[in-house]
Amino acid sequence: MPEIDGARLLRDLRHLAEFGRYKSGVHRPTFSPQDVESRQWLVGCLREAGLAAEIDGIGNIMSTSPASGPKLLIGSHLESQSHAGWLDGAMGVIFGLEVARAFREDPTCRDLGIEVAVFADEEGHFGSFLGSRSFIGELSDEDVAKAANRATGQPLTEALAQAGFGGRPRYVLEPDRHVGFIEAHIEQGDTLESTGRRVGVVTSIVGIWTYEIVFEGQQNHAGTTRMAARKDAGFALTELCHAISKRFPEVAGERSVWTTGRIRLEPGAPSIIPGRADMYFQFRDAEPERLQAMERALEELVEASDKAGPCRASLRALSRSVPNVMALPIQAALEEAAERHAPGSALRMPSGAGHDAQYLARRLPAGMVFVPSIGGISHHWTEDTADADLVLGCQVLATAAETLLRAA
Amino acid sequence: MPEIDGARLLRDLRHLAEFGRYKSGVHRPTFSPQDVESRQWLVGCLREAGLAAEIDGIGNIMSTSPASGPKLLIGSHLESQSHAGWLDGAMGVIFGLEVARAFREDPTCRDLGIEVAVFADEEGHFGSFLGSRSFIGELSDEDVAKAANRATGQPLTEALAQAGFGGRPRYVLEPDRHVGFIEAHIEQGDTLESTGRRVGVVTSIVGIWTYEIVFEGQQNHAGTTRMAARKDAGFALTELCHAISKRFPEVAGERSVWTTGRIRLEPGAPSIIPGRADMYFQFRDAEPERLQAMERALEELVEASDKAGPCRASLRALSRSVPNVMALPIQAALEEAAERHAPGSALRMPSGAGHDAQYLARRLPAGMVFVPSIGGISHHWTEDTADADLVLGCQVLATAAETLLRAA
Repeated sequence: MPEIDGARLLRDLRHLAEFGRYKSGVHRPTFSPQDVESRQWLVGCLREAGLAAEIDGIGNIMSTSPASGPKLLIGSHLESQSHAGWLDGAMGVIFGLEVARAFREDPTCRDLGIEVAVFADEEGHFGSFLGSRSFIGELSDEDVAKAANRATGQPLTEALAQAGFGGRPRYVLEPDRHVGFIEAHIEQGDTLESTGRRVGVVTSIVGIWTYEIVFEGQQNHAGTTRMAARKDAGFALTELCHAISKRFPEVAGERSVWTTGRIRLEPGAPSIIPGRADMYFQFRDAEPERLQAMERALEELVEASDKAGPCRASLRALSRSVPNVMALPIQAALEEAAERHAPGSALRMPSGAGHDAQYLARRLPAGMVFVPSIGGISHHWTEDTADADLVLGCQVLATAAETLLRAA
Repeated sequence: MPEIDGARLLRDLRHLAEFGRYKSGVHRPTFSPQDVESRQWLVGCLREAGLAAEIDGIGNIMSTSPASGPKLLIGSHLESQSHAGWLDGAMGVIFGLEVARAFREDPTCRDLGIEVAVFADEEGHFGSFLGSRSFIGELSDEDVAKAANRATGQPLTEALAQAGFGGRPRYVLEPDRHVGFIEAHIEQGDTLESTGRRVGVVTSIVGIWTYEIVFEGQQNHAGTTRMAARKDAGFALTELCHAISKRFPEVAGERSVWTTGRIRLEPGAPSIIPGRADMYFQFRDAEPERLQAMERALEELVEASDKAGPCRASLRALSRSVPNVMALPIQAALEEAAERHAPGSALRMPSGAGHDAQYLARRLPAGMVFVPSIGGISHHWTEDTADADLVLGCQVLATAAETLLRAA
C-alpha cells in the first residue's frame, strides 16, 4: 500500500501558501505574479516526483507518468478567490503530488501511474472553468480570445502572454489514457464537522440554476401617494421573497439550497416609492427532477405575483447547470479506504459547489473526496482544516487510487 | 373682491417653465444658471406689480408692499427636482404674484398688502428647507458654511457666490408684520382627482419619521451552506418587510403611508449568502399619537426579528419631523372661498409631503391650498394640472386672502 508522508504533505501545502500570502490565507488571483510563480514552483515539484510536467497555453499544468500500467488523474486548481483560503484548490493539487510520490516510493506500485493536473482559473477570474473546459476540448480559441478579467477588464490573451504562456498549445485529455479522475477538496460547508465525520465521499456535484426576477411598478412620491394607489415594485419583491420562503421547503429536497443574493430597488431613496426592483435568485440540487420542481414552483410564484398586480413580475433564467453524478466505483473505493484508515469517518454527500470534476466527469469516470472545513468557512482567509484531517484525506486518496488502478 | 386674470396667470406660469425647460417639465436645480435667471426674472415681475423685491444672501426672494393696512405673506419655491414638473413650487410663487396684482388692481383692496416670498432650495439640493429655515431664523451661518450640493459636492457658499448672492444679508421674518402665510401647491397625489374635488384645504403637514434597519448575519457560500446552518441577513430583512406589511395596516391611520425605499444586500452576488443587509423605512402621518404607535409597532417587529435570530436586527431613527397643524382661520377662509367659486369643490386633507409652510407655521398662522395633480404624478416631467384648476385655485387664494386681511 502506498503510504503518504504527512509531514512532507503539510510542508508543501504551507510552502504553497506563501505565494500571495494574505493574513492566514492567500490572495492569488489567476495569472497574478504570485499565481504564475506558484505554477512554476509546482512544475518543479512534479518533475522532482518523476513526472514530465509542462504548463500549456491556457495555464493548465499537465504531467505524465513513465509508469507502464494503468494511470489515474488527480488534480484541482492553484489560483484563489480574492483574499481567500489557503486550501481551496491548492489542497487537491498537493494531494496529487504527494500521492504520486507515495506511489513512486512503493516498490509494489511502480507500474501504476499517478498523473497530476492543475486546471487554470477554476475560480472564474476570467471566465467559467476555463482550464477544465479547455482540457476536455470544450473551450474554443474564440472563447479564449473573448475572455477578459471580470475585475480589471484585462484580456485573457494579454494575461497569458504576460505570464509567458501565450502561443503555447493547449493540452486536451487523451481518450482512454486514464482509468478516472479524482479531485480532493475542502468541503466548504459544515456537514462533515456537524456530523462528526472526516471524509466526504462526493456522490454528485449539484446543478446550479440562477434567475433574475424583475418587478415593474410606478415610481412615485412616498408622502402623497395613498397606500391603495401605489404600485410599489419593492413591496412586490419582498412579498415574493416571503412566498418563496413558504413554498420552497415544500418542494425542496433535504439538501436543496436556495438563495436571494442581491436585491435592488430603483431609485433607492427613502422618500420615493420604488418603480422598479430586481433580485437574483438561485437554487441548487443534485437531482434534475428536484431542480425542475423548484423551477416550476418559482415560475408559479412569479406568475401569481404578476397576475395579482399591481406590479408586473417577470422571471429570466441566467444559467442552468446539470448535476454531475460521480462514478460509483470511485465512490466505493474512497469509502472503503476511509473505513480502513478511520472507521466510521466517511459520509456520502453531494457537493453544493461547482468543481473542475464536473467537467472531467463528461469524459471519464470522475470522483471527489472532501475534508472538513473548520466552521464550514470558505472563500475567506480564515478558511482552515485540521492537520490530521489533511493527512487522513490524502492517505484515503492514495489508498483509493491503488484500489482503482489495481482493478483496471 | 380682487379678481385674478387667468390668462395672465397661465402666461406667466408658462414663461417661467421656459427657464430650464425639459420635455414638458423643467430641470432647474437650486442655483443652476436657469434657476438664477428665473429668480432675477421674478424679481422684475414683483417690482412691476408694485412690490419692493430683493434676493437675499441665501437666495430667498422677499418683497414688501407699500399698502398701509394688514399684510399677508404668500409664496413657495422656484427651483425644481431634477427633470421634474413645471408647477411644483413655481405655481405657488406665481399665484402670489397674481394675487398681489389682483389686489393692486382692485380699488377696494388698495390698503391690503400682499407680499410674495420665494424660499430657496425647498427641493433639498443643498440641504433641508434652507430658505424657509433661514427666513424664520433657524439656519446659522455655520449651517450655511457646511452645506454642499448632494450631487456634485459643491459648497453652498461657492454656489451662492457664483449666483451673485454671496455676502448679502439674509432676511428674517419681521414679527407681527403679517397676519399669516399661505402656500399654494400642487397636491402631488391623486386624492383630489379620485374624489372629484378641485381644491384641497390642507389641515396639517404630516410628520415624516425615517429609519435605517440593519441586519447582521454571516456571509457564506450559497452552495455548501445548509439551509439550517445559514445566517442570511437578506432573508431576515425580507421577512421583516413581510411582517411590516401584516402589522402596519392594524396600527396605521386612514391616511398613514409607509415605504421601504431602499434595500441593500452585502456583498450582493448571486452565489453568496448576504452577511449584512440594510433598508430605509419611512412612515408619515398628521397625528403625533399615530406616529408614535407606528414607531412602537416597528420597534416591536425589529426586536422580534432580533430575538428570533439567527441574525441580529437593529433600528436607528434617521429623522422624526413633527406634524404641523394649519391655522384654522386660514382653513375656514380657503374652504369658504372654494365654496363660493366652485360649490362642493373643496376637500380638507393633510399634506403627505413636506413644504416650506411647515417652517413658517412655527412663527405665524400658516395655511396651504392644493390644486389637483393629473394622475397624482409629481417629481416627474409629466406632472401637470388642468388650466381651469390652476385658475380656480388662484382665485380661491385671492378671495381667502381678502377675507383674512379684512378680518385682521
